[in-house]
Amino acid sequence: MPLVETIASRKVSLKLRASTFFKELQETICAAIEGVDGQSKFTIDRWTHPHGGGGDTRIIENGGVLEKGGVNFSDVSGQLSERLARRLKVKPEHFRATGISLVLHPYNPMIPTVHCNLRYLELENEDRWFGGGMDLTPYYLNEQDVIHFHSTLKKACDKHDSSYYPRFKKWCDEYFFIKHRSEGRGVGGIFFDDLREKPEETFSFVQDIGNTFLEAYIPIVNNRRKDRWGDAERQWQLHRRGRYAEFNLVYDRGTLFGLETEGRVESILMSLPPAVQWKYNVQPKPDSPEVKLLEALKTPKDWL
Amino acid sequence: MPLVETIASRKVSLKLRASTFFKELQETICAAIEGVDGQSKFTIDRWTHPHGGGGDTRIIENGGVLEKGGVNFSDVSGQLSERLARRLKVKPEHFRATGISLVLHPYNPMIPTVHCNLRYLELENEDRWFGGGMDLTPYYLNEQDVIHFHSTLKKACDKHDSSYYPRFKKWCDEYFFIKHRSEGRGVGGIFFDDLREKPEETFSFVQDIGNTFLEAYIPIVNNRRKDRWGDAERQWQLHRRGRYAEFNLVYDRGTLFGLETEGRVESILMSLPPAVQWKYNVQPKPDSPEVKLLEALKTPKDWL
Repeated sequence: MPLVETIASRKVSLKLRASTFFKELQETICAAIEGVDGQSKFTIDRWTHPHGGGGDTRIIENGGVLEKGGVNFSDVSGQLSERLARRLKVKPEHFRATGISLVLHPYNPMIPTVHCNLRYLELENEDRWFGGGMDLTPYYLNEQDVIHFHSTLKKACDKHDSSYYPRFKKWCDEYFFIKHRSEGRGVGGIFFDDLREKPEETFSFVQDIGNTFLEAYIPIVNNRRKDRWGDAERQWQLHRRGRYAEFNLVYDRGTLFGLETEGRVESILMSLPPAVQWKYNVQPKPDSPEVKLLEALKTPKDWL
Repeated sequence: MPLVETIASRKVSLKLRASTFFKELQETICAAIEGVDGQSKFTIDRWTHPHGGGGDTRIIENGGVLEKGGVNFSDVSGQLSERLARRLKVKPEHFRATGISLVLHPYNPMIPTVHCNLRYLELENEDRWFGGGMDLTPYYLNEQDVIHFHSTLKKACDKHDSSYYPRFKKWCDEYFFIKHRSEGRGVGGIFFDDLREKPEETFSFVQDIGNTFLEAYIPIVNNRRKDRWGDAERQWQLHRRGRYAEFNLVYDRGTLFGLETEGRVESILMSLPPAVQWKYNVQPKPDSPEVKLLEALKTPKDWL
């Protein structure tokens, strides 16, 4: 675990090292995204949490590639409500949480939306765990892109434990499932939570996942950014973004956790797409690329 | 109660009479809305529920006045899950539900969005109750419109019980509150639920509320439809519609009830706005009409 050793000695708390890593990762990712976007810059919005700590929300809008993107760092503390503690299956204690959360919504419907979140939580009673993951939501299915994304994640997982990728890939498919639509939010990636064992090794894994984000996503952007699209593709993208909003507002634990712990609403909901349409009963034409996507979202696939 | 007596004798079940009334109300309202819209007609989409019964969803899109509107009738049965029964504070029995639910989203940001829902539920054990209401969501505040809406509702309530309007007005303000934004979804109206006492009188009240919908809303449409608007007003409308989607997907009981009982998703989510924007941290200019609306949504007002 060279990174851990470099950042700090074991004397520095895991929480502080995790927080430092997430903050540095935010800087790295934002700089790289600005480079790829080529037009807009991130605005910086620093904020404090009413119950302690705060965060730094970076937003990019109306870019050359990105219609809207947010890369949010936070390091907050507070009190878990009874209800929330029950859901997390922990005691309703004082908590500290630090993490990075990003969502990128490109203009070009040929470029998928991406989401990545890494977080560390600890309670007063010394219970502590990591969670997070990364997943891709295409509007049009390009299997090569999906395979690139998954194989990059698998490589990062395999460095630590060969059981990670299959386990976390399955978890991702199950987590990002829009029950009322009977379809996945996207083509998955990895998702993990409640990682309590071997905290130092887990932290090293979490860092590798964070550090692999740019390698997993940026080549897809560069492969697709010149792809042509018109009004029909835009309409489909706006329609599919409705599903994204439905998932985040109805099911997403992170969103509901944030809203229930009186988190900073604008930072939590920066994940929502910039523009969305809900038309009645949209049905794409048979054998169209739109139907090809829907088929892929119906049942989780083994992409590798 | 002349209407009750006309529709059917007491031998016909309350459920059947309620269902008949809601269906006829749907026809009346759709015909009137088509007249006001002047351009589009409702499409009719009849469907069956997997657990019994079905419905008739009427949708109007791309109209002269309406960007999207839905008037949904349903008469379904099913089994309440343990979880849902707990939330409704009833036993997890077989249920029957019939109702009408409508949401109209006009193009012109000067015309408010309106929502109305009336419903009757009964359980195997003979427990039965009515619920419903009607509320207004403006993008720009016109106090005369709001006063007209509330006074029309008060008049209909007062025919039955002078305690209804103040009680149901307060209930509406409390129900349509977006907790994470600390603001009302709109300027309210009335909301009521669990009305179990005196079912015949309550049915008569519910019919009067249904029959007053056109009088409450159509004059507002006609007052505002010639009001001028441009891109700035459209942007604000799209932004505020984001709040509407947030409320419906995070808090609305009817929406969550429908999704959890495997209701027909397209009919339930027809309430979502046709087009929505989520930009980061939108802050209107001081002393603008946009700020005037936000002020009105912060604290419930006594409009009459």
